[in-house]
Amino acid sequence: MSTKSDYTVAVLGLGAMGLPMATRLASELTVHGFDIAEPRLALAAHAGITPFNSAAEAVKAADAVVLAVLNSQQLRDVLFGENGIVGALSAGAVVIMTSTVGIDDVKEVAAQLAAHNIELVDAPLSGGPARAGAGDLLVIVGGSPAARETAQPVLGLLASTLTVIGDSPGDGQAFKTVNQLLCGIHIAAAAEALALAKNLGLDGEATLATLAAGAAGSFMLANRGPRMLEAYAEEGVEMLSRLDIFVKDLRIVTDTARSTGLPTPVAAAAEQLFLTGAAHGKAAADDSAIITVIAPRQS
Amino acid sequence: MSTKSDYTVAVLGLGAMGLPMATRLASELTVHGFDIAEPRLALAAHAGITPFNSAAEAVKAADAVVLAVLNSQQLRDVLFGENGIVGALSAGAVVIMTSTVGIDDVKEVAAQLAAHNIELVDAPLSGGPARAGAGDLLVIVGGSPAARETAQPVLGLLASTLTVIGDSPGDGQAFKTVNQLLCGIHIAAAAEALALAKNLGLDGEATLATLAAGAAGSFMLANRGPRMLEAYAEEGVEMLSRLDIFVKDLRIVTDTARSTGLPTPVAAAAEQLFLTGAAHGKAAADDSAIITVIAPRQS
Repeated sequence: MSTKSDYTVAVLGLGAMGLPMATRLASELTVHGFDIAEPRLALAAHAGITPFNSAAEAVKAADAVVLAVLNSQQLRDVLFGENGIVGALSAGAVVIMTSTVGIDDVKEVAAQLAAHNIELVDAPLSGGPARAGAGDLLVIVGGSPAARETAQPVLGLLASTLTVIGDSPGDGQAFKTVNQLLCGIHIAAAAEALALAKNLGLDGEATLATLAAGAAGSFMLANRGPRMLEAYAEEGVEMLSRLDIFVKDLRIVTDTARSTGLPTPVAAAAEQLFLTGAAHGKAAADDSAIITVIAPRQS
Repeated sequence: MSTKSDYTVAVLGLGAMGLPMATRLASELTVHGFDIAEPRLALAAHAGITPFNSAAEAVKAADAVVLAVLNSQQLRDVLFGENGIVGALSAGAVVIMTSTVGIDDVKEVAAQLAAHNIELVDAPLSGGPARAGAGDLLVIVGGSPAARETAQPVLGLLASTLTVIGDSPGDGQAFKTVNQLLCGIHIAAAAEALALAKNLGLDGEATLATLAAGAAGSFMLANRGPRMLEAYAEEGVEMLSRLDIFVKDLRIVTDTARSTGLPTPVAAAAEQLFLTGAAHGKAAADDSAIITVIAPRQS
């Protein structure tokens, strides 16, 4: 006997973020899942998600479709590509876009969907896989009131904080772009600060605790700082958030700022630092490993 | 009938920070004051501070001397210059250095003082004039246990948080250098973020509130952000902390990091941004005006 509601949501992309989100949604909703990787589909089936062999089949009966894609190319492919879902969507279904891909791409895709009478809810997330699984994400929403209402059962389960920032797709991406400018810079700043403290012979933990409690404090310093101090350990640090997320997001930040005529020299320097990290083979490492890019571990 | 203790402290430099510190100290201690500017001496006299016409006279009977100077040149002049105090100090008096001038200069000065059997307590501050007057500063202390004990009546009145970071002069400056790296970058990042939000048509106050509560948050974003949003007002924003403090401090940051072989590309970009602000005539403006450097007010 199921206590799930009749509301059906399809989750397309069952990766590091998609799978915990789908699992969380399956606690109350009927969830259809699709991923091009078979093993991810098998994992999903064990988590109460109904697996489908095609994205189009997965979305047919869905009230909402959650897209957890990596970039704007994947976004276009899943909607309008060879096996795209746009023709399979039910009338009245909404597409919920949870990834950070930039304002212009989301606006263009929303316009293309509108031509098919489908609305897009632009709902980029802040928070990693653990918070996704617990429904503890910050979700920033841009979308029409009607589309937001249709999406509410999904957004309400994923978010501990849900902020409607505007009525149009693109507004969520705009906020997220500003958010990532700060997050990326703050992580880079924490790395420079803790590497400098180390070079000056200061005690890392005492310095971090005092910094974090005062005017120098930031969420990222408190969150990533302890992992940066661990980054010199032989075994490295557990991967919680990939370094190359900020290669992608800071490119969006500097591209977006440039397109509005705004210089962002500090974000640009942070972007170059994350690019340097990726160039040194740390793309898939935890982003706290950025400290080892400016102050390599002595071998 | 005075309730003040016999402990006498001389405060040399009664500027934006020196005067409120001296005023705070005068609530419990005997305070001798000196400043080269006559009007500052007159202000001090009204605040319960005994004014002196020379630094040497002011320090003669003092248990501790507080130096609130602008830079290392002033530090050397007041101690060892033509009218320097080094010969006038009592045996056992300590010199408390509250400014941010960099590690090497403080170490050199401490060594010179040691040759005269005078100890230096390296005690850079974090917090502006209002917090100085209320005894609500963060004070980071590097100095010998004996010197710290002598300085304690002064430090205890100035600090709401007093952190001993090491036993040597220079340790306080080392911590403060790391602290200012973060503060300077975070102010610059807040300016880039809020200017970008403005260019993207986001509501400034809603965006700031949501950013500050999440992973993008920092002390400086919450503290300077509202003033940055006001920076476009006709009358500008009240001056609470001069922009060129970060021209000075970020030079110390990048010089210090360079001397240890550490690249700090993000701090260097922030330094250039503050230098650009000073070049545009905003050296004496509030540092939140940095936002108008990257996104000028439309005239």
